[in-house]
Amino acid sequence: MSNTYQRIVLASRPDGEASTSNFRLENVPLPAVGDGQVLVRNHYLSLDPYMRGRMNDGKSYAQPQPLDQVMIGGTVGEVVESKHPSYRPGDKVVGMGGWQQYHLADAKQPGVLRKVDTSRVPLSAYLGAVGMPGVTAWYGLVRIIAPKAGETVVVSAASGAVGGTVGQLAKARGCRAVGIAGGPDKCAYVVDELGFDACIDYKAHAGAKSLAAALKEAAPNGIDGYFENVGGSILDAVMMRMNAFGRMAFCGMISGYNGEPIPMAHPQLILQSRLKVEGFIVSEHMDVWPEALGELGAMVAGSRLKYRETFAPSLADAPEAFLGLLKGRNFGKQLVKLV
Amino acid sequence: MSNTYQRIVLASRPDGEASTSNFRLENVPLPAVGDGQVLVRNHYLSLDPYMRGRMNDGKSYAQPQPLDQVMIGGTVGEVVESKHPSYRPGDKVVGMGGWQQYHLADAKQPGVLRKVDTSRVPLSAYLGAVGMPGVTAWYGLVRIIAPKAGETVVVSAASGAVGGTVGQLAKARGCRAVGIAGGPDKCAYVVDELGFDACIDYKAHAGAKSLAAALKEAAPNGIDGYFENVGGSILDAVMMRMNAFGRMAFCGMISGYNGEPIPMAHPQLILQSRLKVEGFIVSEHMDVWPEALGELGAMVAGSRLKYRETFAPSLADAPEAFLGLLKGRNFGKQLVKLV
Repeated sequence: MSNTYQRIVLASRPDGEASTSNFRLENVPLPAVGDGQVLVRNHYLSLDPYMRGRMNDGKSYAQPQPLDQVMIGGTVGEVVESKHPSYRPGDKVVGMGGWQQYHLADAKQPGVLRKVDTSRVPLSAYLGAVGMPGVTAWYGLVRIIAPKAGETVVVSAASGAVGGTVGQLAKARGCRAVGIAGGPDKCAYVVDELGFDACIDYKAHAGAKSLAAALKEAAPNGIDGYFENVGGSILDAVMMRMNAFGRMAFCGMISGYNGEPIPMAHPQLILQSRLKVEGFIVSEHMDVWPEALGELGAMVAGSRLKYRETFAPSLADAPEAFLGLLKGRNFGKQLVKLV
Repeated sequence: MSNTYQRIVLASRPDGEASTSNFRLENVPLPAVGDGQVLVRNHYLSLDPYMRGRMNDGKSYAQPQPLDQVMIGGTVGEVVESKHPSYRPGDKVVGMGGWQQYHLADAKQPGVLRKVDTSRVPLSAYLGAVGMPGVTAWYGLVRIIAPKAGETVVVSAASGAVGGTVGQLAKARGCRAVGIAGGPDKCAYVVDELGFDACIDYKAHAGAKSLAAALKEAAPNGIDGYFENVGGSILDAVMMRMNAFGRMAFCGMISGYNGEPIPMAHPQLILQSRLKVEGFIVSEHMDVWPEALGELGAMVAGSRLKYRETFAPSLADAPEAFLGLLKGRNFGKQLVKLV
């Protein structure tokens, strides 16, 4: 164990699009472990779209990421030193360890660390299908869309960690699952590997009308549930095809993260089609995590829930990988390998 | 009783804004009353914004109004001839009698006619506060917004039959009620007569930002529930001031009835503020009518629910009055006096 470790802090806030210059890699000494604390060596860091929102100042649902402090982020790792009776070196844990190789956790605070069993579920999956993205998919689908067997569920960013899980959970409930993703490779993966009934390549469509026509073909009985990760003209197109009493779960609007306007073209469809629309943040619904993680973990252990991971090879590659994620360049869950 | 009566049919569909030339007044013979039928002399016709939507062709939540047929509309009146055992001449009834002086109802069909008690509630109120507009207000407020005491509820078109009732029902539940209406007279009425805590004259504000600033003053603790009758920049302004976990009931979007685009500027606020948005049509929720009419009728009988009515003096004046309603020229519930 070296006496120093690497971490990445937010150096400046983006003006429009984020860039690698907004981040700064630092080398800092390993901290001493105090009473009740646990030192964790992070094995994997999760990169997620929500981080882009935190880089902005101003009103959002969450506190902005402070400047010159370690970028927020979920991690899985291994306990290397513990002064808390519940944790021993070698324990595998999930936590919000941030963009760094080690993190010191105050294990006395409930929820800061969660021990995980890696006998049937790979460690990295606790950052994806059996972690925050999986529970996000579960909550939006099960609690907001609440689909009945035979209904049609559409999800955008369908090849991503959240979107891919939404479709597979919908299929497990007897629904028709239709994905929207960028490019033929992602669409082929969504259908051939994840088992969606159809996937539409939004890059092959110039606007909402063309996309709506493709949706009419892919969802011939209309759309009963929509899981939104993107916003903009994709949302407009889906709304044109929503059935009466359809439900839309708003999980993310990645197309507006740089501050560009993303108006909803036809809000009157909410009235005309008597839609229910609900925005949510999964961290505000901790009560569902046990039930959701139970289903997701059993599905992964039984190979009934598939996912793909993309690994950035080291912490220094995290900013580039994160910017690629925002542009949809990743394929499946974007992780950073730290060991 | 004359042998003929007047009715108004839809002569043509509007191209953009509706005009009086879209309607045609006809004189037709009184029909013979068949078995199970009831002939009703209509005393009052209700004019409502939803009728504008029916005048259009194309997809909406309801069938378009057929050309050359009597315009749809709610009426109250008196039975003049009955071949159904449940109805006798002199009975006061509510029904969808249309834009005409008489209507022949098939009383065998449940729900076509409803007898009403005019001993404590005026007949015309069954078209307003104790009728469809009242139940519309009740459903959106009680079932969608579901406000708690101490919360702030905002309603647009606050001086109208629906909006005025929303605010008074909210006040009865211990909420702060803030109206949005057009012009100082309407705003004074909303506050002084209906008892709202505040009312904003949207005509005094050039755009969503200015209106949002006024809302900040009128609703200093933010907005927990919004009852939407209008759409457009008023909706945009309200959304800027919605509290986390706020609820928005979409009842009408009168600003888009002529087909002009009314985009929602910042749909990402649904996510950022974790809003619930739901569109509804009260006729699809017949199960709530008894409970809602019970509360509304008791409030009117006890003078705890106030409303204002504007009467067009005859059926021939209905088209002009209807066009005025669409432009907000009416004050309170717009009715047509037929006797």
